[in-house]
Amino acid sequence: MKKIKKTAFADLEARFRTHFINSLSGFKSANLVGTKSEETGLNLSIVSSVIHLGANPALMGFIMRPARVPRHTYKNIIKTGYYTFNHVLPSFFKEAHQTSARYPESVSEFEAVGLTPEYSDDFYAPYVQESQVKIGMKFLEEVPIQLNDTILIIGEIMEVIYPEDCKQADGFLDLEKAGTVTCSGLDSYHTTTKLSRLSYAKTDKPVKEI
Amino acid sequence: MKKIKKTAFADLEARFRTHFINSLSGFKSANLVGTKSEETGLNLSIVSSVIHLGANPALMGFIMRPARVPRHTYKNIIKTGYYTFNHVLPSFFKEAHQTSARYPESVSEFEAVGLTPEYSDDFYAPYVQESQVKIGMKFLEEVPIQLNDTILIIGEIMEVIYPEDCKQADGFLDLEKAGTVTCSGLDSYHTTTKLSRLSYAKTDKPVKEI
Repeated sequence: MKKIKKTAFADLEARFRTHFINSLSGFKSANLVGTKSEETGLNLSIVSSVIHLGANPALMGFIMRPARVPRHTYKNIIKTGYYTFNHVLPSFFKEAHQTSARYPESVSEFEAVGLTPEYSDDFYAPYVQESQVKIGMKFLEEVPIQLNDTILIIGEIMEVIYPEDCKQADGFLDLEKAGTVTCSGLDSYHTTTKLSRLSYAKTDKPVKEI
Repeated sequence: MKKIKKTAFADLEARFRTHFINSLSGFKSANLVGTKSEETGLNLSIVSSVIHLGANPALMGFIMRPARVPRHTYKNIIKTGYYTFNHVLPSFFKEAHQTSARYPESVSEFEAVGLTPEYSDDFYAPYVQESQVKIGMKFLEEVPIQLNDTILIIGEIMEVIYPEDCKQADGFLDLEKAGTVTCSGLDSYHTTTKLSRLSYAKTDKPVKEI
């Protein structure tokens, strides 16, 4: 085992440091954020920071770096109030990663990378047709993180589109069956293999596989 | 494909709703948070919300529900200022899950579930010996999320302990090689299989495997 301390971080080459530190949180969600504006059209960008915030109300958040690539996404969310999360599948993870290139604001990443916009009834923001688990979000609040000038974008789940055969009797959605990938670091993509689901933990007995 | 709208969420049975909504963000990191206090001893709790916030300064965050289980962890972090993240491996994912049981404050979850506390030099908080990737954190700030009374706990990375053969030449840490697991929903654990790493995306050429 190797140990590296904070005092040595400053000596790391910048890109090396970014790769290393980005790897440390563990495996991450891989979502495409779909937005639209009347002025600049469609936008699609991959994010790896989407997290569950609560089930009632049903909230999810993700981190934005306002000075960097996804600023078109940020502008569209703030302006229109709506966006979508679309889980990434092995069949289009390269196209999903390609959305992180710095396309001009007038370019639709859907078109640039070859993914298909799809609409659900009157929901404003575009979904990714190729995705299997898709969530329609309404923007609620941006929480500034002053320590490093990032923003936690919080939204409420307005609708969920999912493969019905992936939903288990207790409400659990089997993302592995749905083909959802996970990512790590800045650029590594992975499929998953289930170890097991575990019972609700109680102090007086060991957990068991369910 | 099935669609469910927000208006139908209220009709879902509470536990069903919790399982379903918790599944939607995608795959999550699985970390054990190690803390200590002079009054109540050691504490260990599993969290699935650890996220990367930035590489310079090196920051990570996670979500706490103050009214629920991990409040001993919260108290220890606020009181002592230090905590550890320890990646979960297949060899102890059941013990890791068991830490979510509501043990009394005086009980060490290390002891209750059978994991081994380990110390690094003079770092205050305990690590999990059985883990392969371990991060020593210093508490910096708690950001309240008023929408649902949760807290984003932000800390700075003080040191990282990792298997040296898992670090690649560009700084990327191969978590799959390190055995780190990912989780989904409230209780599902998974190993991973790499699709590939992808090159930095540029607008004028497609990404390639690296």
